[in-house]
Amino acid sequence: MNLTTLVRIGVSGIDFSSCSQTCDHANLHSGPMTTETHNTNQTTVRGDISRWTQSLIPTTREAPADAETPSHIFLSRAGYIRKVTAGVYAYLPLGYRVLRKVEQIVREEMNATGAGELLLPALMPLELLKPTGRDQDYGDLLITLEDRHGRAQFLGPTHEEVITDTLRAAVSSYKALPLSVYQIQTKYRDEFRPRAGLLRCREFIMKDAYSFHASQQGEAVQDGCIITHGAGGLDETYDRMYQAYVNIFTRCGLDFTVVEAEAGPIGGSASHEFMVNAETGEDTILVCPSTGYAANVEKAEIGERPAPEGGYFCGDPTGDLDTVHTPDCPGIEEVCKLLKVKPANMLKTVVFKANGGQHDGKWILACVRGDQDVNEGKVRDVVGGSVAIGDIAAAKAAGFAIGYVSPAIAAGRDDVVLLVDPDAAVGFDAAKSKPMFWVTGADKPDHHVKHFNWQRDLGGDPEKTATVTSIRNAQAGDPSPRASGVSLEAKRGIEVGHIFKLGDKYSKAMGFEILGKDGERNPVIMGCYGIGVSRTVAACVEQSCDDNGIIWPAPITPYHILVTLIKPDAETIAAADALADQLADSGFDVLIDDRDERPGVKFNDADLIGIPIRLTIGAKALAQNSVELKARTDAGKGSLVPIAEVVERCRTLLDL
Amino acid sequence: MNLTTLVRIGVSGIDFSSCSQTCDHANLHSGPMTTETHNTNQTTVRGDISRWTQSLIPTTREAPADAETPSHIFLSRAGYIRKVTAGVYAYLPLGYRVLRKVEQIVREEMNATGAGELLLPALMPLELLKPTGRDQDYGDLLITLEDRHGRAQFLGPTHEEVITDTLRAAVSSYKALPLSVYQIQTKYRDEFRPRAGLLRCREFIMKDAYSFHASQQGEAVQDGCIITHGAGGLDETYDRMYQAYVNIFTRCGLDFTVVEAEAGPIGGSASHEFMVNAETGEDTILVCPSTGYAANVEKAEIGERPAPEGGYFCGDPTGDLDTVHTPDCPGIEEVCKLLKVKPANMLKTVVFKANGGQHDGKWILACVRGDQDVNEGKVRDVVGGSVAIGDIAAAKAAGFAIGYVSPAIAAGRDDVVLLVDPDAAVGFDAAKSKPMFWVTGADKPDHHVKHFNWQRDLGGDPEKTATVTSIRNAQAGDPSPRASGVSLEAKRGIEVGHIFKLGDKYSKAMGFEILGKDGERNPVIMGCYGIGVSRTVAACVEQSCDDNGIIWPAPITPYHILVTLIKPDAETIAAADALADQLADSGFDVLIDDRDERPGVKFNDADLIGIPIRLTIGAKALAQNSVELKARTDAGKGSLVPIAEVVERCRTLLDL
Repeated sequence: MNLTTLVRIGVSGIDFSSCSQTCDHANLHSGPMTTETHNTNQTTVRGDISRWTQSLIPTTREAPADAETPSHIFLSRAGYIRKVTAGVYAYLPLGYRVLRKVEQIVREEMNATGAGELLLPALMPLELLKPTGRDQDYGDLLITLEDRHGRAQFLGPTHEEVITDTLRAAVSSYKALPLSVYQIQTKYRDEFRPRAGLLRCREFIMKDAYSFHASQQGEAVQDGCIITHGAGGLDETYDRMYQAYVNIFTRCGLDFTVVEAEAGPIGGSASHEFMVNAETGEDTILVCPSTGYAANVEKAEIGERPAPEGGYFCGDPTGDLDTVHTPDCPGIEEVCKLLKVKPANMLKTVVFKANGGQHDGKWILACVRGDQDVNEGKVRDVVGGSVAIGDIAAAKAAGFAIGYVSPAIAAGRDDVVLLVDPDAAVGFDAAKSKPMFWVTGADKPDHHVKHFNWQRDLGGDPEKTATVTSIRNAQAGDPSPRASGVSLEAKRGIEVGHIFKLGDKYSKAMGFEILGKDGERNPVIMGCYGIGVSRTVAACVEQSCDDNGIIWPAPITPYHILVTLIKPDAETIAAADALADQLADSGFDVLIDDRDERPGVKFNDADLIGIPIRLTIGAKALAQNSVELKARTDAGKGSLVPIAEVVERCRTLLDL
Repeated sequence: MNLTTLVRIGVSGIDFSSCSQTCDHANLHSGPMTTETHNTNQTTVRGDISRWTQSLIPTTREAPADAETPSHIFLSRAGYIRKVTAGVYAYLPLGYRVLRKVEQIVREEMNATGAGELLLPALMPLELLKPTGRDQDYGDLLITLEDRHGRAQFLGPTHEEVITDTLRAAVSSYKALPLSVYQIQTKYRDEFRPRAGLLRCREFIMKDAYSFHASQQGEAVQDGCIITHGAGGLDETYDRMYQAYVNIFTRCGLDFTVVEAEAGPIGGSASHEFMVNAETGEDTILVCPSTGYAANVEKAEIGERPAPEGGYFCGDPTGDLDTVHTPDCPGIEEVCKLLKVKPANMLKTVVFKANGGQHDGKWILACVRGDQDVNEGKVRDVVGGSVAIGDIAAAKAAGFAIGYVSPAIAAGRDDVVLLVDPDAAVGFDAAKSKPMFWVTGADKPDHHVKHFNWQRDLGGDPEKTATVTSIRNAQAGDPSPRASGVSLEAKRGIEVGHIFKLGDKYSKAMGFEILGKDGERNPVIMGCYGIGVSRTVAACVEQSCDDNGIIWPAPITPYHILVTLIKPDAETIAAADALADQLADSGFDVLIDDRDERPGVKFNDADLIGIPIRLTIGAKALAQNSVELKARTDAGKGSLVPIAEVVERCRTLLDL
């Protein structure tokens, strides 16, 4: 038995192949790429020994009233964390030990990328956010305050602006780049509804890294060594960070999936999320079981969907167009309730405005089935320019009854481009072997129409007006984009890391330009790379627990070994001290439960706090020079082990 | 030459004897007192290697316009810190390395006391401060804000309330005590005028520890091991913290003085401040050069002052009482200016009200010379109860013209106790061989009197009305309280640590009572122990720098060795890498200056950033298998050292 099997190591779940077209992760060095290393393997650092009676470990039987998820319940009950106010927690000694172990792994892997550690403040002047407009964009999420002199300040939810400002003051030429820096620091976001303990907090700990480059491409690593003078583009550092993240979550003992993510309105060419696999996760990941392709809902591509027999749009009307009054129906759900139809029989049309590309300035109508969601990124890709949900007043002036738009309005209009998702471009309901019944907007406020028919209502030739193209979010059951005949599957995950090619969004807005090799001044190219450090602790518990409590993976457990004294007297305490001393010398962290409590209480607490190995010292076993050894995952009592063999047994079990 | 002599190690400056009456520090164990140790001595952890070109070290020639003190100037110029807004700094990589080294020393010594590390939040609900009234007491120093739901919050300037609240929820019996916890965490105080870089900030890093006890006295350490179950009073933990603080500042390589401090209105029986000795310090320390006794101005005792020849109060009037109009004179300074007299010729009378003690309810007049300050603690000690600057309205109603009170008003009043400091109880000016000329208040608003005479104006028998007793702050030149014939000397210091016997102030206010051995419920006894971690970094620079820059003591230098490449080419870079590798294996942190800059620029920067040893690699020396070694404190160029001997030479110089 080997405790590393407690949680599946996530490497097999990582999709290296999925991004091999854009970044050659498979070719990354696996080891540190800089001369700065910490080489913890070289020496065994002595472990810590603590006594329960000298520690603050307030275990309780009852979970907080608002605790619903396992990590919230167990971290609270086991005395790892304590709520101070909504979304704000104290990390008690056990919780802080886990946090610091995660931090140390993050630190070592970040250092190995060549990034330098620094510490930026939480309190900053609000004017810092003005150039990028994030003082407005953040809305109520941003915690703001006035200092005693009336100056507007905020508590950093992230640090792009201040680090860009800092580098702008320090770097003026390509010669000083690339440069990467990171910090492990406390962040603030005024979540409307903080939830799930450490999973969604108002004060939380993040690792955020930022990289600065003279170019997008360019190699700076030569012979395993980073050279500078302008070499080393964003892509290279991004790949190195990707690998560091894989190392970090693997070293933490987590089962995780790397998913392609939507770069979003920031632009940039790539973004990946690192998801801890957990049924309780709030994010959906779509995975191709055959190729390992994984992406979040927004980013996931959909494989080719066969056109319906008879072609798109083909089918007879189900009846005459029937305009119905649908007041107070802000969404699909309400309309369906009122009209007693299913969302899959609704057509939903979202109005965008194209900015750039072949349709620059035109209105873009994106029509999908009512039970599906328009994917803005896919619309943008089709249009070939950026798109924005248009100014509502302007859209109304252009004839669009926002909320009640029918695809029919596109017919005959040169200023409108109609995109229809294949699942919506259907005229015949094959499953029911009869014409497709559609409900859609009536192109006037508070009204919908029944019996919409593509042929009839788009002027007899829908293909002329509409372009059929994949513009919706993917969902489970969709064809895999990477393997024919295979369907995408949905998994749940908790986002613990996110890496991002920012490009020049911040440097442009803040005027951070450098002199290039060519003598031209250009905005610096940036990347940013985040890890939710405190969230990772909670995500680990979500993934690794049972009915009795937490089951820590060895690399981030607060203590490796719990020595439980059946009845703490001079003899057993002396034996525990001697044993703990040996174990600490071998590098293990040891907690001695020396409380004057009933053994049952101690055993329950042992399971609750989740230390991987429990050694129980009782007079009877001690008389045989033995202790009882039980792994957290073992059922029953455990087995008697001679004291002389304990260190070796622990080493094997923990596999450190 | 040994670099530990760069700064004097402070142990000789510490006054153990001064407090031997109240706490037996001399008998403290010098080693760790718990089984939890980190034993860094056991193994050599490999050092770090960084390259200048991959680091963010923005050195500049110009200091910020507002920088006046050496630490502010040099930490800014050398790229250790960067101001983000008033009193808020970013710690750039070099600065953060120093900070972390200080933190690690603090952590090891705190762990050795048996305290457990945790992390409390900065953002807390304002209601937490209501029971202790600190929401009001802090005034504008407290940074407050409203969250999106309108709830009042604050950013913690310190954490007594939240830790008391946490322990109250976890501990109900003496059996679970003593318990000590600490954190290294970011604090917020909205200083009116932040100044001197890291010395007085609005956002700064502190170590704050809190201990909880069932009693003031009681030994918990037996055979070097801490036992609990109610044993272990505040005094014992206080002594252990005192020793830990001595260890911390000694290990940081600082020259410091431990001074007795005034417990203040919080009460409690002891308080010590740890002061880094520096001429630029804003605190005054009074030291007895003969015994080592040291205290701050408020706390320092004054040795016996001989009564004047002829006795107190004796001397003829210098003239008739002359009442003069002194409008718009709020202070001594203005009166002296107007009347053209020296402050030493003024009598200053402060009105207190006694609460408890032998004079309960009476008015206490404390009269000192105009150039000296009344010491409230000494007044309190004389009175034997607490004293407060009385309610001004009540004092006026009782006949005291606040701001213009003369000691004469005490004559014949049973409700007034007049205390006169020996320096004020003088009737004859011995230095001038003539009667003493006094100016004092006229007992009516906006008026003073000249030619005050103790005999005449106190009804002929001042001894009957006045008690002569030491009630002023000590000052340089005062007789030492510990050695006769020796005068106190004044030194300047920067407060970096403060330890405090809190007693039951917080537990009483917050209702944290526990069941004692005797079955009675009593408030918990507390201690608190602070270190300004970021301030310690700055204090070290104040103490250890020259005209060219910082001079780091080896234990907290960001890197031990700077390897400067005269001209970075393949050969010298390879040599530098090989040498750095050897040095790192020996546990040294190495920074390689591989910039493409002129040697003069690099040498200046080397002095500025203050790394203890510079190794210069040039082609000529390299041809002789040598490098140039220069200690930061050496004048001139340094000396040629064979590469094979470099590690040993560095080891000797750094003495780690």
